[in-house]
Amino acid sequence: MTPSFEALQKQLKLLPGVGYRSAERMAIHLLLEKPQSAEDLLASIQAAISRVKSCPNCGNICEEEDLCKICQNPKRNEDARLCIVEHVSDLMVMEKSGSYDGLYHVLGGKLSPINGIGPNDINFASLKPRIEKNSISEIILALTNDIEGEATCHYIGDALSDMDVTITRIGFGLPSGGSILYSDPVTLKSALDARKSI
Amino acid sequence: MTPSFEALQKQLKLLPGVGYRSAERMAIHLLLEKPQSAEDLLASIQAAISRVKSCPNCGNICEEEDLCKICQNPKRNEDARLCIVEHVSDLMVMEKSGSYDGLYHVLGGKLSPINGIGPNDINFASLKPRIEKNSISEIILALTNDIEGEATCHYIGDALSDMDVTITRIGFGLPSGGSILYSDPVTLKSALDARKSI
Repeated sequence: MTPSFEALQKQLKLLPGVGYRSAERMAIHLLLEKPQSAEDLLASIQAAISRVKSCPNCGNICEEEDLCKICQNPKRNEDARLCIVEHVSDLMVMEKSGSYDGLYHVLGGKLSPINGIGPNDINFASLKPRIEKNSISEIILALTNDIEGEATCHYIGDALSDMDVTITRIGFGLPSGGSILYSDPVTLKSALDARKSI
Repeated sequence: MTPSFEALQKQLKLLPGVGYRSAERMAIHLLLEKPQSAEDLLASIQAAISRVKSCPNCGNICEEEDLCKICQNPKRNEDARLCIVEHVSDLMVMEKSGSYDGLYHVLGGKLSPINGIGPNDINFASLKPRIEKNSISEIILALTNDIEGEATCHYIGDALSDMDVTITRIGFGLPSGGSILYSDPVTLKSALDARKSI
């Protein structure tokens, strides 16, 4: 192994879900087995770095356009709903589920006093103006089910209490296909708390 | 998702062991979560593409030097052994095992008449001159234990029959930690054929 090979392997290992062995296999693939794929990957990273930017409205990704496709689509505001998510990746998962057709607002994180992350460190300031501008009637909080997600929901709920908007948070409980046997105690507690009469 | 994002995801998906979801996670990581890592990966691919080349002697990778580190090291020829492997990745695994300290010869593939791969399509022509030049006394064939590996070993054995060199092939059998219970029939047959008195 040579210095540049090892440097490339080290960079590949930083990708999520990639360990030492996978990074080595990838470096071998790129440099030795399919040299063309290294050129192609290079070109696509360069293109993506230069083109992909953040939608100034919601925080989703966009390219040539001024706003992202969702913000551009007037149909997405028909029900005047705004879903608040932590990251663009969460937005992507929501979109793929096909179960939501409203607007989004990407916070870019969640409040974490212990890590020194306050309201000014996330994309919060633009939320109120957006609610007014789009005449939003319902805010759906789709944040992680953990302490920081909880704190962020409380903060947003308090901060928007003077606005004429319904604030909801997505439900918690057993995931689809989830068995009681393999559920953790916290999930089971959420599921029990969220029980409904049938 | 935007066109450049999807193009990058598609390129990442071509890496070995990377599926659709992993490629998406990687693209998100590179473009949204850690933009610096995209720049770093870009730089390391560029550097590796321009620097890493093939050792003209054995086929291993090298960089600035004329020959790879193994060919440069006179100690590696003390026992006058030459290990023939298919790919540089095989050489790397052999090196990491620490169980071999001789020279290598990377074929860059194996004979496969069915796929039209003959002796001229692999790094075979330079083998005889190397054996003579380095006064090699033993050729160790470390090729895959499959039909094409078998055919390649036979071909090399025949082609070198007029030379004063011992030709061996690495042993086959149960891998380290391998249990009889989970062994396939072909491995068990190899293991039985390779039995030794104790």
